[in-house]
Amino acid sequence: MTTTTYTVSGMTCGHCVTAVTEELTRLTGVREVRVDLTSGRVDVDSDQPLADDEVRAAVDEAGYQLT
Amino acid sequence: MTTTTYTVSGMTCGHCVTAVTEELTRLTGVREVRVDLTSGRVDVDSDQPLADDEVRAAVDEAGYQLT
Repeated sequence: MTTTTYTVSGMTCGHCVTAVTEELTRLTGVREVRVDLTSGRVDVDSDQPLADDEVRAAVDEAGYQLT
Repeated sequence: MTTTTYTVSGMTCGHCVTAVTEELTRLTGVREVRVDLTSGRVDVDSDQPLADDEVRAAVDEAGYQLT
């Protein structure tokens, strides 16, 4: 299991947290996503290390930016 | 047709707009809901005048406040 921490900007409410969580959870191997709305910190537990571009695309798909 | 204007506080993003719109659209007789995120202004078109307490309950259900 790998845990990687990202920072996502643009989230303003609980719905934003849900959108980011749902998109990241769809990535292959992702077990759990924990989002802190205030700081934008996103911890992702996954079976194997994730490709940065896939994570970036998922966050973008949700409508936010990986910083 | 009646159009009533309300002010809703607490909305921060497009997801919030969607949540408020969906809850208000469920009220009997509501035809259209227009939300301006920046000002919090919400215009509701309905077949008959709406009961304030029903509108307040719908906005509350969405997670926001009628002011």
